[in-house]
Amino acid sequence: MGLKKPLRIGMVGYKFMGTAHSHAYKDIGMFFDLEHSVQMKAICGRDEKSVKEAAEKFGWSEYETDWRSLIIRDDIDLIDVNTPSNAHKEIIIAAAKAGKHVFCEKPLALTLEDAREMLEVAEENGVVHAVCFNYRYLPAVQLAKQLIDEGRIGDIHHYRASYLQDWLVDPKFPLAWRLQKEYAGSGAHGDLNAHCVDLARYLIGDFEKVVGQQKTFVNQRPIPTSMTGLTAVASDDYGDVTVDDTTSFLAQFKNGALGIFEASRFATGWKNGNTFEIYGSKGAIRFNLERLNELEVFLREDEPHLQGFRTILATESAHKYAGNWWPPGHTIGYEHAFIHLIYEIIQSMREGSTRTYPDFYDGVKCQQVLEAVEQSILTQAWVNVDSL
Amino acid sequence: MGLKKPLRIGMVGYKFMGTAHSHAYKDIGMFFDLEHSVQMKAICGRDEKSVKEAAEKFGWSEYETDWRSLIIRDDIDLIDVNTPSNAHKEIIIAAAKAGKHVFCEKPLALTLEDAREMLEVAEENGVVHAVCFNYRYLPAVQLAKQLIDEGRIGDIHHYRASYLQDWLVDPKFPLAWRLQKEYAGSGAHGDLNAHCVDLARYLIGDFEKVVGQQKTFVNQRPIPTSMTGLTAVASDDYGDVTVDDTTSFLAQFKNGALGIFEASRFATGWKNGNTFEIYGSKGAIRFNLERLNELEVFLREDEPHLQGFRTILATESAHKYAGNWWPPGHTIGYEHAFIHLIYEIIQSMREGSTRTYPDFYDGVKCQQVLEAVEQSILTQAWVNVDSL
Amino acid sequence: MGLKKPLRIGMVGYKFMGTAHSHAYKDIGMFFDLEHSVQMKAICGRDEKSVKEAAEKFGWSEYETDWRSLIIRDDIDLIDVNTPSNAHKEIIIAAAKAGKHVFCEKPLALTLEDAREMLEVAEENGVVHAVCFNYRYLPAVQLAKQLIDEGRIGDIHHYRASYLQDWLVDPKFPLAWRLQKEYAGSGAHGDLNAHCVDLARYLIGDFEKVVGQQKTFVNQRPIPTSMTGLTAVASDDYGDVTVDDTTSFLAQFKNGALGIFEASRFATGWKNGNTFEIYGSKGAIRFNLERLNELEVFLREDEPHLQGFRTILATESAHKYAGNWWPPGHTIGYEHAFIHLIYEIIQSMREGSTRTYPDFYDGVKCQQVLEAVEQSILTQAWVNVDSL
Amino acid sequence: MGLKKPLRIGMVGYKFMGTAHSHAYKDIGMFFDLEHSVQMKAICGRDEKSVKEAAEKFGWSEYETDWRSLIIRDDIDLIDVNTPSNAHKEIIIAAAKAGKHVFCEKPLALTLEDAREMLEVAEENGVVHAVCFNYRYLPAVQLAKQLIDEGRIGDIHHYRASYLQDWLVDPKFPLAWRLQKEYAGSGAHGDLNAHCVDLARYLIGDFEKVVGQQKTFVNQRPIPTSMTGLTAVASDDYGDVTVDDTTSFLAQFKNGALGIFEASRFATGWKNGNTFEIYGSKGAIRFNLERLNELEVFLREDEPHLQGFRTILATESAHKYAGNWWPPGHTIGYEHAFIHLIYEIIQSMREGSTRTYPDFYDGVKCQQVLEAVEQSILTQAWVNVDSL
Repeated sequence: MGLKKPLRIGMVGYKFMGTAHSHAYKDIGMFFDLEHSVQMKAICGRDEKSVKEAAEKFGWSEYETDWRSLIIRDDIDLIDVNTPSNAHKEIIIAAAKAGKHVFCEKPLALTLEDAREMLEVAEENGVVHAVCFNYRYLPAVQLAKQLIDEGRIGDIHHYRASYLQDWLVDPKFPLAWRLQKEYAGSGAHGDLNAHCVDLARYLIGDFEKVVGQQKTFVNQRPIPTSMTGLTAVASDDYGDVTVDDTTSFLAQFKNGALGIFEASRFATGWKNGNTFEIYGSKGAIRFNLERLNELEVFLREDEPHLQGFRTILATESAHKYAGNWWPPGHTIGYEHAFIHLIYEIIQSMREGSTRTYPDFYDGVKCQQVLEAVEQSILTQAWVNVDSL
Repeated sequence: MGLKKPLRIGMVGYKFMGTAHSHAYKDIGMFFDLEHSVQMKAICGRDEKSVKEAAEKFGWSEYETDWRSLIIRDDIDLIDVNTPSNAHKEIIIAAAKAGKHVFCEKPLALTLEDAREMLEVAEENGVVHAVCFNYRYLPAVQLAKQLIDEGRIGDIHHYRASYLQDWLVDPKFPLAWRLQKEYAGSGAHGDLNAHCVDLARYLIGDFEKVVGQQKTFVNQRPIPTSMTGLTAVASDDYGDVTVDDTTSFLAQFKNGALGIFEASRFATGWKNGNTFEIYGSKGAIRFNLERLNELEVFLREDEPHLQGFRTILATESAHKYAGNWWPPGHTIGYEHAFIHLIYEIIQSMREGSTRTYPDFYDGVKCQQVLEAVEQSILTQAWVNVDSL
Repeated sequence: MGLKKPLRIGMVGYKFMGTAHSHAYKDIGMFFDLEHSVQMKAICGRDEKSVKEAAEKFGWSEYETDWRSLIIRDDIDLIDVNTPSNAHKEIIIAAAKAGKHVFCEKPLALTLEDAREMLEVAEENGVVHAVCFNYRYLPAVQLAKQLIDEGRIGDIHHYRASYLQDWLVDPKFPLAWRLQKEYAGSGAHGDLNAHCVDLARYLIGDFEKVVGQQKTFVNQRPIPTSMTGLTAVASDDYGDVTVDDTTSFLAQFKNGALGIFEASRFATGWKNGNTFEIYGSKGAIRFNLERLNELEVFLREDEPHLQGFRTILATESAHKYAGNWWPPGHTIGYEHAFIHLIYEIIQSMREGSTRTYPDFYDGVKCQQVLEAVEQSILTQAWVNVDSL
Repeated sequence: MGLKKPLRIGMVGYKFMGTAHSHAYKDIGMFFDLEHSVQMKAICGRDEKSVKEAAEKFGWSEYETDWRSLIIRDDIDLIDVNTPSNAHKEIIIAAAKAGKHVFCEKPLALTLEDAREMLEVAEENGVVHAVCFNYRYLPAVQLAKQLIDEGRIGDIHHYRASYLQDWLVDPKFPLAWRLQKEYAGSGAHGDLNAHCVDLARYLIGDFEKVVGQQKTFVNQRPIPTSMTGLTAVASDDYGDVTVDDTTSFLAQFKNGALGIFEASRFATGWKNGNTFEIYGSKGAIRFNLERLNELEVFLREDEPHLQGFRTILATESAHKYAGNWWPPGHTIGYEHAFIHLIYEIIQSMREGSTRTYPDFYDGVKCQQVLEAVEQSILTQAWVNVDSL
């Protein structure tokens, strides 16, 4: 489709992800040459005081308190949704029907069925649809992708992924919305494994079958005074944790590789340990989000006495996006990947461009794997992903 | 039982493990004060020329070419068996029946049934029986054990283990005995996961249930001129690989922890990556055999601004066995753990001592887990370990 | 002095540092609650086309092509100077005389004499004066400072610093302004050691005496078509490199510590390796800018078996500034330190506040050490820093 | 000269180094094929009870209590001296005059003059003379040497070395012989910088000039009940520390490289941190003795997006000596380097062989650099090494 100039954004949500997305819209034009500039038109949230403050702080021109009003505005081209997961579907579908391009946080939906419906509606209405799998767009991850695509790693034998955090080890940590099934759908699985599954699909391809295990270590937590954010204050009342603290699973890929995945919010000492390791017939790759500027690469083509994992600081102009930032060795941070992803979305929106970002189809495929894992836990048996 | 002075050793096998065990017997008295010295009496192998050379090189007083002759000698107290796995059972059982103490390489046997029989015979004959789970006896692993036992790690939530090597990535690597089921029983699973399973049991306790996956990536390999060793020369003829190249599995422990295990000989870039990670309610531990002098420890009791994984160089006198070697920072190598294990066996053999080494019961329990994993692969379902 | 609302900025320079400073002004209000907001009033550069583009791209309201016009505008409160070093003095002095607060890139001046004059004029005119020693304001560096101030490291015995880059190893790299004495004053010494010297002073105090060595490995380089930036295109003509490629020196501090410093643009493999190590009677600290979110800390107060360097990810709310950004483990990048420094300047500008940022006095003291090193190279002998 | 079979060793000293050397003689034949076997003939020490115990424990056939008796025995071919440094000269000279080959611990002598005399006497008497610069013979260091010799690192610009320990940070650590000038000659300088200087000479060549600084942080320490070993028990009486706790220096090499060296026993957290870093026009190398199986290598010949320090685990058959030990990834320890060095000495002793070990000439050259540093501290000026 043709891309309007400038691209006018309306955003629903203004917490953690709302900040990250706002920052990306604000900074992108400073570091990337866009044919079509971005305009931060309006931000939307239910609490007027809070959303007004967010609008001012983040640099949105206007604010709305009802997303229904937002999505029908004719001065907005793209709706960005980063609310709690349970609200994604309704807003996205309404926005798509209103002819708006849609950009949704992950996980796309609470269920595979919902995700499929969202994809279908977006396709029917011919709008651009994207999912915020931001980690694909770190320079180090792009380098991993490039090496695999170039055949430098060879046939893939093993994919090992983990996303380890530890913010729930403290049993006094309150019952945030992310710990309640009705808002979040699932816990570590949907929040963290969603990233792992998407990265695996992006890097080595689709899943064949899975079998998993899941556990909630702390079943009751203090009810917070506010449901939002990770820093909510605890009260004296306790409520039920209705999502998983950890989910791990074995996987077999269509290309014959074996996989092993683990997400946890109880991995003491890890703060944001989204890692993957890929072992192939020609080389190997290791990544750890806590050192997001680095990629470890082993190449069997190196001379025997010189083989070893090299730690590549992906800050050279030879590394995708890195040249848009600072000189070599001047590292970037967590938020930069959002900018790169939004850059890809906007660039791809130009007439005739190839899509280079994760869309709702990717959201659906990710959901399918997550749901297959959950079914395998219910049935205590392997589940073929495509059977869902 | 009472321990004879000196303890006279007879050993069957003289390859990789034979070298490591011989070295341990040779050096132990130099660094450890033993009430009962060790005497390297006789080494046994079928090829007279080779075993004679080994005897001279390693410092054994005599040699034998038939293990049946060895085990009936009345000038020998303990039989050490480090042949290919398929020969363990017959020799061990005969030795135990001959009243000899027995020390066997892992995996104890090709099957759980065999392992149980070996345990039974050893117990019936009242001999000391030990299995060479050497990695327990690295100072860093001892430190891990100590911290867990002291309660410094708290309740265990996660156990992650891998044993990754890459010597089979080259499809031209020959069909050594370790790649043939009749000699080795299994591949990466029995060779590598055996260590992981034993360390897990040693550190956090017994397994409840498992589900696994397994694969052989290269199904035919050149037939070597010699079956022994890893460096056998390839020929033009190809034979079938009848064991797994990799086996991974999910596990649930009796203490409620969840586990994730992976062994592979196709993990490009890893040479001897026996790793474990333990995440508990109070702290965490990480170990990697490729840096065997180090243990990474995270303690939640540290002040908030000072929490981080500390890399402890386990070479202080405060670390078990380290004080017997060199000053702090003067690291030890792979072979030292064998010395520590043999030290524990000998010390425990004194009248009234508590056993401090892995015995055939541990060998059986390890085999039980390995076999449960294999059954889970056949049945494509979870298997309760105690059901075997 | 009282702080005007908002604080209106005028900036001279729009290249590497101009981008970093602009970004900081643009983003600061989004992550930090400022009583006095920042207004990006005007940017100044000699080339109208370029500065106009920069103004648009970075978000400055207006632009100027003559800094003399900029500094007399009465709608500007603070002049930020990040031109090549040779231009600092004239602009800063004029701005201070015009009653403008001044914020200058390092090194403050080409000579100690110039730096002292700049300090004197700023003081006489009663304006705020600050130097952009940005690295002080990384959370990990703040943690180092805190630990030292709390006495957790004890008496300091050793300070080891290096700032290693490798962009000049390629002899074809062109003769940028940073390689010419008339523009840059010195090479690795003024550019890189300036940071090391300031961090040392900030963390452990003043220098007593120094002795150094210096070398230019490649004496002629291609003359670029443009003097600015690091990526200038080479031509066929060669010109003389008139600054050092590397300068290293020994140092003795007033507190009795011994120091060792090295800056180089020929340290192959290092991209931006600004490192320091501090060894004290109670503990130790290590920092490496290439992993700027981490601080390594060793504490002798830890139990003997638990002593080791802990790698602290300084992204917790317990770490200064970190709480203003993302959840733990979501790392920040190079540019964030500028924001923190500007935050400190603005906060300190409030009536009655204590200065918490590096001012021209720090710029002078840094220059004094750098010049003492240069004198020691000329005289081939130790030089007392205070003798200059 | 012709090499007798077997090579019969007599050794003076039986503490830390005596243990390391004994171990090497004991194990060498097990892992290395020697044409000429080694015979541990007699060990010598003044205290009969202790030396008798050492002889039994280490496996020496006999013992002596007077080195004068040892060196005249006609059943001994080589005298190994690892006493406190002050005793080296007399024993070595007497042994050489008695026609014995000599192998001496470092530093060769207390003074350059003594070292030169030892070299002269050894040469006059036509005996083999070797100095125990053991660290040259780690596989990782051999790899460094190989890469430099192959030209893979290019012209050397920077050599950075440190040898950092922390056993003196505790002011209660007793006044061992290593802290007294009359026994040890110097402190960290002679003990630790001696290794750094030898490695630098071995790897990149000779020194041109130096300037240094030195300090003793704790000037009085408890007098121990026994002077030997590092674990001596403290008493209530205090004595003067008469050697340096730390010595650092700048260096310029004959090949144009700049160097920076630091040795300390006050570097809190470091246990045995013998490190070197070499930056050249084509590549770079980093080594740290606390991870002695690893070498970090950076090669500019790698493709731009793949450049990074690779961590090479020097345990492959492609790495010198590694193939004599265990399979890849099965790491070796501190003591193994002694075996390799002794192997080189013995191999070189064969008729017509090239010397491949450090001899007294290397001992003299090392002493010359150390003494030049000390003179530079006295004169507070640079000293040309060859002027001594």
